[in-house]
Amino acid sequence: MFESAEIGHTIDKETYNLEVPILREALLDAQYRLREQARFPVLILINGVEGAGKGETIKLLSEWMDPRLIRVDSFDVPTDEELAHPPAWRYWRRLPPKGQTGIFFGNWYSKMLEDRVHGRIKSSELELAIDRAQRMERMLCKEGILIFKFWFHLSKKQMMKRLDSLKDDPLHSWRISPLDWQQSKTYDRFVKHGGLILRRSSRDFAPWYVIEGSDERYRSLTAGRLLLEGLNAALDAVDRPSTQPHAAPVDLNTDHLSLLGSLDLDQKLDKGAYKDLLVQEQARLSQLLRDRRLRKRGVLALFEGHDAAGKGSAIRRVTGALDPRLYRTVQIAAPSEDERAQPWLWRFWRNVPARGDFAIFDRSWYGRVLVERVEGFCTPDEWLRAYSEINDFEEQLVDAGVVVIKFWLSIDKETQLERFKEREDTPHKRFKITEEDWRNRDKWDDYGHAVADMVDRTSTEIAPWTLVEANDKRFARIKVLRTLNDALEAAIQ
Amino acid sequence: MFESAEIGHTIDKETYNLEVPILREALLDAQYRLREQARFPVLILINGVEGAGKGETIKLLSEWMDPRLIRVDSFDVPTDEELAHPPAWRYWRRLPPKGQTGIFFGNWYSKMLEDRVHGRIKSSELELAIDRAQRMERMLCKEGILIFKFWFHLSKKQMMKRLDSLKDDPLHSWRISPLDWQQSKTYDRFVKHGGLILRRSSRDFAPWYVIEGSDERYRSLTAGRLLLEGLNAALDAVDRPSTQPHAAPVDLNTDHLSLLGSLDLDQKLDKGAYKDLLVQEQARLSQLLRDRRLRKRGVLALFEGHDAAGKGSAIRRVTGALDPRLYRTVQIAAPSEDERAQPWLWRFWRNVPARGDFAIFDRSWYGRVLVERVEGFCTPDEWLRAYSEINDFEEQLVDAGVVVIKFWLSIDKETQLERFKEREDTPHKRFKITEEDWRNRDKWDDYGHAVADMVDRTSTEIAPWTLVEANDKRFARIKVLRTLNDALEAAIQ
Repeated sequence: MFESAEIGHTIDKETYNLEVPILREALLDAQYRLREQARFPVLILINGVEGAGKGETIKLLSEWMDPRLIRVDSFDVPTDEELAHPPAWRYWRRLPPKGQTGIFFGNWYSKMLEDRVHGRIKSSELELAIDRAQRMERMLCKEGILIFKFWFHLSKKQMMKRLDSLKDDPLHSWRISPLDWQQSKTYDRFVKHGGLILRRSSRDFAPWYVIEGSDERYRSLTAGRLLLEGLNAALDAVDRPSTQPHAAPVDLNTDHLSLLGSLDLDQKLDKGAYKDLLVQEQARLSQLLRDRRLRKRGVLALFEGHDAAGKGSAIRRVTGALDPRLYRTVQIAAPSEDERAQPWLWRFWRNVPARGDFAIFDRSWYGRVLVERVEGFCTPDEWLRAYSEINDFEEQLVDAGVVVIKFWLSIDKETQLERFKEREDTPHKRFKITEEDWRNRDKWDDYGHAVADMVDRTSTEIAPWTLVEANDKRFARIKVLRTLNDALEAAIQ
Repeated sequence: MFESAEIGHTIDKETYNLEVPILREALLDAQYRLREQARFPVLILINGVEGAGKGETIKLLSEWMDPRLIRVDSFDVPTDEELAHPPAWRYWRRLPPKGQTGIFFGNWYSKMLEDRVHGRIKSSELELAIDRAQRMERMLCKEGILIFKFWFHLSKKQMMKRLDSLKDDPLHSWRISPLDWQQSKTYDRFVKHGGLILRRSSRDFAPWYVIEGSDERYRSLTAGRLLLEGLNAALDAVDRPSTQPHAAPVDLNTDHLSLLGSLDLDQKLDKGAYKDLLVQEQARLSQLLRDRRLRKRGVLALFEGHDAAGKGSAIRRVTGALDPRLYRTVQIAAPSEDERAQPWLWRFWRNVPARGDFAIFDRSWYGRVLVERVEGFCTPDEWLRAYSEINDFEEQLVDAGVVVIKFWLSIDKETQLERFKEREDTPHKRFKITEEDWRNRDKWDDYGHAVADMVDRTSTEIAPWTLVEANDKRFARIKVLRTLNDALEAAIQ
C-alpha cells in the first residue's frame, strides 16, 4: 500500500518555482468555476502519519487557492451536543454546500484508526466502521460531492527523523496528537491498520491518494496537482457518471393482490371504547416518556399516509398527553435553498433528535420514495438507491439509541373522496385541500405501488413499519398510540 | 403590577365549554393565516411564579393549535457550545422563521430574575440586563417578530396552597425548578424583582400580560384570547406600524471636506521594506494567535472597502501565516432563503466565532448601511436603526470576550478605474469584474457619504474602525496586519 511513498520522492527548487505559479492560477480558476457552476461541493479528507506535512500542505493549498471558499474543520474532542447525537451528525452539519470546499481533519478515518491503535475497538469493529464509512461516502458521491482522500506518508525512519526536527517548532506543537508517536510500535500499528483502511476504502468513487511527505516541494505539488486534475475532470463532465441502476421494481401483483389492499380497513372503534382507550394510552405514553431509562435514548416517530388519512389528527392525539417541552414536531415540506445545496438526507440529519428528545415527523425522508418517485422529482437512480440510504440512516439512529417508529396511515379511495368533499364544504377546513391533492388522487395506484415497495424494502427489524387502518379515525389513533407505547416499553426493558 | 392578578379570577365550566370550541377554531385559523402570509414569526415568552400553570397553559395551547407550527424551547443549563458564544447566541439560533411560532421557556427574563433572586447579580446589573433585553426586543419587533410576554401569577398564599397540592403530581415534578419555592422569602424576592422587570420592560412594541394562574379555566381562556387578539391584529395590519424615523443624515460637508477625502492615499511601501515587514508581521500574528491567553477569547476581523480596494488579497496576507485550522473565513453575499426568513442580523449571529476561534469576515453586517442603503434594498427606517443594532451586536461580542477589528480599505476613483481595466484585460482576473461593479462606480459619492456616516456612528471605543489607505496594496496589507497584531497584543495584556 505504501511502497511507492517510501522511495524518497523529491522535486528540485527550480522545477517547483516554475510549476507553482501555473498550478496556483489553474487551481484558482477551477475554484471559481466550482462556485460558478454550483453543481457540487468538494470534500477533502486529510489523514496520514504524524509529521508527514498534513497541516502544512493544507495551509499551502489555502494560500494558493481562495480561502474564502474553503472551510477547514478539525474534529477533535466532540462537544456535548455532538455526543448527544449519532456519531455522523457532527460531520453532516459541517458538510460544504454546492460550489464550496470543505477540508476535514480528524475525520471518521482518524477516529476509527486511533480507536484501533489504542485498542479501544477490535479488528471486527474496525471492519464494520470501514463499511459504514463506505456506505456514507458512496451516498455522498451519488449526491454529487467530489471526495478527495489524501494520506500523507513517511517511512518509520523518515518519521523519527522528522519528529526530532519538529520538536522545537512551535508551529507544529500547538496541536497535541492523541497518539504517542515517540513509541516505535505506535507507527507499526498505525501503518498496519491504516493499510487495511486504505485497501478497503479505496473505491472508484473515492480513491485514496498516498503522498510521500518527506519532501515539502514534492508533497505540495503532488497534492495540488491531484486536486486540480480531479476538480477539472468533475467540472468538465456535463453529467457526473452514475452507475447504471437496476430496472425499477416491477409490480409483482399480477394476481391483483396488493399490500395495501390486504388491509382490513373496516376495523372500527365505538365512541365509548375510544374515549376510555385514549385516556388510558395517553397516560401510558406520558408515563413512559418520563421514564429515566428513556433519558439516555431518543425517540423518533414518523407519520406517512394517504392524503386526508388523518396524520395531523393522529399526531395531535399523541402530543395531547404531553408537556410541549417534551416533544418537537418536524413538518416536512419542500426543501429550502440551503437544503437544496446539500445531499438530500441533510435536512433530516439536521432534525435528528438528541439524547432524551422526542421528535415527531409529519412526513419524512420517505417522501423520496413516495412523492418524489411518483411525481418524477428525482431520477429512478436516485430513488432506487434511497432505500439503502434510508436503511443506513435509520441504522445509525438506532445504533445511537434512538427508538424509531414508522406509521403508514392507510385509507381507501372512497374514504378519501368523502373527506376531500367534507373539507371543501367546511369553511375552516378549506385550507387543508388543494388542487395538488386532487392531482395526487389521480395517481392512487402509483402511490400504492410506491408504498408497497417502500414497506418491502425498509421495514427492518430495527425500524419496522406499522400499517394503520385509518378509515375509522378512532381506530387509527388508538392503534398509533398503542404501537408507540409498546415500542417504548420494549425499548426500556 | 400584580394587583389585578391576585383577586381570584375564575370562569365557570359552562362558559368555558361554550367558549373553547370557538376560540380553538379561531386560533387555528389565525395560525394558518400566519403560515400563509409568512410575513412574520410569533415569539411567546413564558414567565411567572412557580405553580401558576405556565407549562399547563402552553400544553393546552399546543393542543388547541396545530403543534406542527409551534416549537417549544426550554433554555435550562446551557450546552458547552452555547457557553462558548455570547449569551444571546442560544436564543438567536432558536428564533422561529416567518410564518411559525416559537415558545421560549426559561428565556432571558428567567435568567436575569433567577440570578438576582439568588444574589448572583446586583441591582444595577439587573437593570443593565433589562436594558439589553429591551434593545434586543425592540430590534426583533422592528424586524417584524410579534412578541407576546406572559407572566403567570399567584399570590403567595395561592402559591403555597398550590405547591402543596402539586407535591405528588408526577407531571409537575419532572422539571426541577432552580429556585427553592418552599422558602417564603423566595416568593417575596421573586415578585419584587419580577415587578421591576415587568415595569421596565413592558413597552408598546412588546407589553407584558399578567395572568392570574389559580383558576385553570380562567388562565387558559385568557392566554388563548390574548394570543388570538394580538395575532389577528398583526395579521390584519397591511403594514406593521413602524415609528417615524428621523430624516436621513444630511451631508454636512458643505466645505467639500470629507472623511475619505481626508486620507493620504499616496502612502507607499517599496518592495524590499514590504517583504521584510510582511514576514515580520505574519510571524507576529501566528505567534499571537497561539497565545494561551487568547484561547478564552474569540477574534473577529471584518473587511469592507471600495470594489477592487484589495480586500481579498489583504485577507490572504493575513491567512497566509496561519494554519488553516486556526481561522475561518466567512464570505458575505446575498442572504439565502432560510436567512431571509429571519431578522437581518441572524445570518451574522450564525457565524459568530466561538471561544478560541478566529473568524474573518469578507464583507459583513455593514452591508446594511452601505450597499443596502445606497441601492435602496432596505428602507431608511431600517438602515437608520441598523447603526444602533450593530453597536449593540458588537457590544455583545466584546462582552463575551471577542476582539472585534474592523477595516475599511479605501482607494480613489482613478485607482479603481485602473484596477477595473486591468481585471478586464487579464484572463484569470476577469471573473472578478462584473456589470454591477461598473454600476456601483457611478454611485461613488453616495458610497462615500454612507461610509462617512458608518464610521461616525459605529466607530466605538470597544470596536473602532481602521481606515486603510489602499492605493498602494503593499502599504495597505502591512497596515492591516500591524493593526490586527496591535489589537491582539492589547487584548492579551
